[in-house]
Amino acid sequence: MSERIVVAGAGLAGSLMAVLLARRGYDVQVYERRGDMRREPVGRGRSINLALSTRGLHALGVAGLREQVLASGIPMHGRMIHSLDGGTELQRYSTDPGEHLNSVSRHDLNVLLLNEAEKAGVRIHFHEKCLGVEPGRLEVLNEETRAVRSVDAPRILGADGAYSAVRAWMQRRDRFDYHQNYLDWGYKELHIPPRGNGRHRIFTNALHIWPRHDFMLIALPNLDGSFTCTLFLPFEGPQSFAALKTDDDVLRFFTRQFPDAVAHMPTLVEDYRHNPVSSLVYIRCAPWHVEDRVALLGDACHAVVPFYGQGMNAAFEDCAALDECIDALAPDWQKVFETYAGMRKPNTDALADLSLRNFVEMRGRVVSPLYLAKKKADDVLHRLFPDHWSSLYTMVTFRRIPYAEAVERARRQDLALGLAAGAGGLLLAGLALRFTSRFR
Amino acid sequence: MSERIVVAGAGLAGSLMAVLLARRGYDVQVYERRGDMRREPVGRGRSINLALSTRGLHALGVAGLREQVLASGIPMHGRMIHSLDGGTELQRYSTDPGEHLNSVSRHDLNVLLLNEAEKAGVRIHFHEKCLGVEPGRLEVLNEETRAVRSVDAPRILGADGAYSAVRAWMQRRDRFDYHQNYLDWGYKELHIPPRGNGRHRIFTNALHIWPRHDFMLIALPNLDGSFTCTLFLPFEGPQSFAALKTDDDVLRFFTRQFPDAVAHMPTLVEDYRHNPVSSLVYIRCAPWHVEDRVALLGDACHAVVPFYGQGMNAAFEDCAALDECIDALAPDWQKVFETYAGMRKPNTDALADLSLRNFVEMRGRVVSPLYLAKKKADDVLHRLFPDHWSSLYTMVTFRRIPYAEAVERARRQDLALGLAAGAGGLLLAGLALRFTSRFR
Repeated sequence: MSERIVVAGAGLAGSLMAVLLARRGYDVQVYERRGDMRREPVGRGRSINLALSTRGLHALGVAGLREQVLASGIPMHGRMIHSLDGGTELQRYSTDPGEHLNSVSRHDLNVLLLNEAEKAGVRIHFHEKCLGVEPGRLEVLNEETRAVRSVDAPRILGADGAYSAVRAWMQRRDRFDYHQNYLDWGYKELHIPPRGNGRHRIFTNALHIWPRHDFMLIALPNLDGSFTCTLFLPFEGPQSFAALKTDDDVLRFFTRQFPDAVAHMPTLVEDYRHNPVSSLVYIRCAPWHVEDRVALLGDACHAVVPFYGQGMNAAFEDCAALDECIDALAPDWQKVFETYAGMRKPNTDALADLSLRNFVEMRGRVVSPLYLAKKKADDVLHRLFPDHWSSLYTMVTFRRIPYAEAVERARRQDLALGLAAGAGGLLLAGLALRFTSRFR
Repeated sequence: MSERIVVAGAGLAGSLMAVLLARRGYDVQVYERRGDMRREPVGRGRSINLALSTRGLHALGVAGLREQVLASGIPMHGRMIHSLDGGTELQRYSTDPGEHLNSVSRHDLNVLLLNEAEKAGVRIHFHEKCLGVEPGRLEVLNEETRAVRSVDAPRILGADGAYSAVRAWMQRRDRFDYHQNYLDWGYKELHIPPRGNGRHRIFTNALHIWPRHDFMLIALPNLDGSFTCTLFLPFEGPQSFAALKTDDDVLRFFTRQFPDAVAHMPTLVEDYRHNPVSSLVYIRCAPWHVEDRVALLGDACHAVVPFYGQGMNAAFEDCAALDECIDALAPDWQKVFETYAGMRKPNTDALADLSLRNFVEMRGRVVSPLYLAKKKADDVLHRLFPDHWSSLYTMVTFRRIPYAEAVERARRQDLALGLAAGAGGLLLAGLALRFTSRFR
C-alpha cells in the first residue's frame, strides 16, 4: 500500500500539489471546506483572473500541464496606462515579445487542476472543514452532515489559504512566529462586458491601469471578450469606499477619475452595489512545518498583496520546490520539510516586500518621469548586456532567480547605475569647465 | 440598575481593572478560566515575583492600594552583578535612594487584588473559559460542568493575557493586525532557599544578575528569605537547554558558569529536572478595540519580554489610562476605547522595543566599559541638571513620562552627549596642536 499524504485545501496550490504527489505514487487525500466548484455556482467578488508568468508556468510544466493552461491564457505584453484625460500609453514589460504575462481564469485553472488530480488518482473530499491536527491524524467536520471525524494523516500539507486552519492550529502551539497585516486599502471587482461581436472593448493584450496615486483601477482581459476590473481604494478618507455612499457618488467618482473606463461599464452602478469590498492582508510565519508531520504551502504561509502578480506564481513555485525536495530526500520527511522551508521562506519574505512596494509603483510611479527614465536605462542596458543586466521586474516575472537574489542583484545594478550616472555627471561637468574656461 | 462591564481574566490587570470599575459603580463581572488561586495550590514555573516600580505603583495608588502592596515588597536598590570568578558589584539604579524597584510576589499581589475586587462588589466567576464574543454577549464554557452559556456583556474588557481568547476572536475578524514573535531563548525558574535563620543567603536589596553574554541567571528576593532565580538560556546550541541532558550536565554547567550561586542552590538538580522550560513571546496588535463593545488591556494586547521589568507596570498603567478615559468620556464608549488605545498603543510599542534591547544589555552590556562610562556620564549630568537630564532607565522605571517620549528624550540626550564629546575632542586636539606647534 502506498504512503498517504493528506492535503488541506483544493485551491490552486493544493490541487497542483496533489497532482505532483499522485504522479509520484502517493495515496493523496484532499480535504476542502468548500463544495466542488465544478458543480456549484461561482461566488461573486473572488479574484476572477490572475496573471500567470514564468515561475507558475515552470511548476505547471513539472506537472506536464503548461501548454494546456497556456492554451486558454491571454497574453498581456505590457501595462496600458490610462491618464485622467483618457489618453493611453502602452509600457511593454520586455523588449522580448516572448516575455509577457498571461491572464488566466482562476476558476478554469482550478477546475483543470481538480480534474487532473482526480485523473492521477487523488481523492478529493468536499465540504470537509479542517478543525485541528493530532499526532498522525486530521480532524475534519463535514459541513453537510455536521459529523466530525478524525482521518489517518501521517503527513499533512496545509494549502488552505490565507485563513488556513492548519496554520491556526500551528499558531496555538508554542514558539510559532506569526504576523498578519492589513492594508488601509480594500478592493472591489467590477466588469467591462464584451462588445456585441464578442470582441474586447479595449485593447486585449495588456494589463490596463488607471493610476491615480492614492488609488487605482486595473483591468485584465477574459476569454469571453470581457474584462475583470478591480478598484483599489482606501477604506476611509476623502476618496474612499466609505465616501462613496450613493449610486450618484459612485457614478460621479468614476466619471471624474476613469472617464474612458466608465464609458465601457454599463453595469457599473449595479456591480458596485452588489459586489463586496474585500480587504488586503499579508501574512508571514515561521516555522513552516511541524517535525516530519505537517508543512504549509502557498497563501497559508506567505499570503502577499496582489500588486506584483506573484501570489499564485509563488504558490506554484512552492509546489515545485517541495516536489524537488521529496524527489531528493523522501522518505526522510523531517529533512524534506526543513529543506523546502529553508529554500522558500527567505524568498517569499522578499516577495512580500516587493509586492508592497509595487503597490506604490502601480498607483503612481508608473507615470513619474524618474521611473520612466530608470525603465529606459534598464531597457538599454539589457539590450547591451542581455546576460548580465535585467530589470528587477524582469527577474521577478520572467526568470526563476530566487526572489531574494533578484532583489540583491537589482540593488547591485542600481548602485552601478548610480555610480555611472555620477561619473557621467562629473565628466560632463569637467568638459563644461574646460569648454567655458577656454572662452573666459 | 448599574451598567454592566464584563472583564475576561482575573490576573493582575483584570483584577485591578475590576477594582477601578467597581469603585465607579459599574456592575463588574469577571470570567476567569483558571480556578480560584486563593483555594488552589500554586502551579510550578510561573513567574513568582515581579519588579514593581513607579508606573505600577501609581496605578495601584489610583485604586488606593499602593501602601498596602508596598508593605510586602522588598526594595531592590540596584543590580548586583556576579562575575565568573564569584566577585560582585552593586550598580545602583539611581543616585536617589527613594528610586528603587520592589520585588513583590505575583501570587500575593493577585490575591490582594481579587479580595479588593470582591470587597468592591465585583463578581468573579472561576473555571469559566471564554469561547467567543457575540454582539452584546460573551460565550463561556464552564470547565467543571462543561456547560456552555452566553452571558449578557454590553461591554467586554479582554485582560486575559498573552494567549487571550478575546484577542483570538478579534483576530478572526477582518482587518486586525497581529504579530506574535518568540525568542530563541527559554527560561526556567530555580530556587535559593533561606538560611536556617530565615535570612537571605545573598544580599537582600538587589536584583542579582549573572550576565554571561549569550545567557544569564537572575534572582529576585522573596519575603520568606528565599530567592526566585530565573535561568535565561537558548533553546538550542552549544550552551542551551537542549545541551543540558543529564543531572551531571546541569551541575557542571552551573558550577562553571555560576559558581557563587550554585553554592546556595541545594535543590538545583531536582528543581532543574522538575520545572518546565517556558518560552518568551512578544505580541503586538491593532486595533485594540471593536467599536464600543470590546477592548483589550495588558498582555492581551502588548505582551513584552520581561527584561525591562515593565510588563506588569505597563498593564497597570493601561488600567489607570482606561480609568481616566472612562472618567472623562463615558458613556461614549466608542470614544473611551479610541482615546485609551490612542494613548497607550504607541507607548507599549516603544516598550516592546525597549524590552528586547534590554535583554542584550542585561546579558552582557552591563559589564562593558562603554556601558559603564555612559552610565557614569548620565549620573553626573543628572546630578548637575536634575530637572533636565535623566537616563533612559530612570525615565522608564522611575517616571511616568510616556514610554515613547522617554525614548525620544533619551535619543536627544545621547545626541547632545555625542556632540559634547565630539566638541571636547576637537578642543583637546586644538590645544594639542597649539602646544606641539609651539615647540616645533
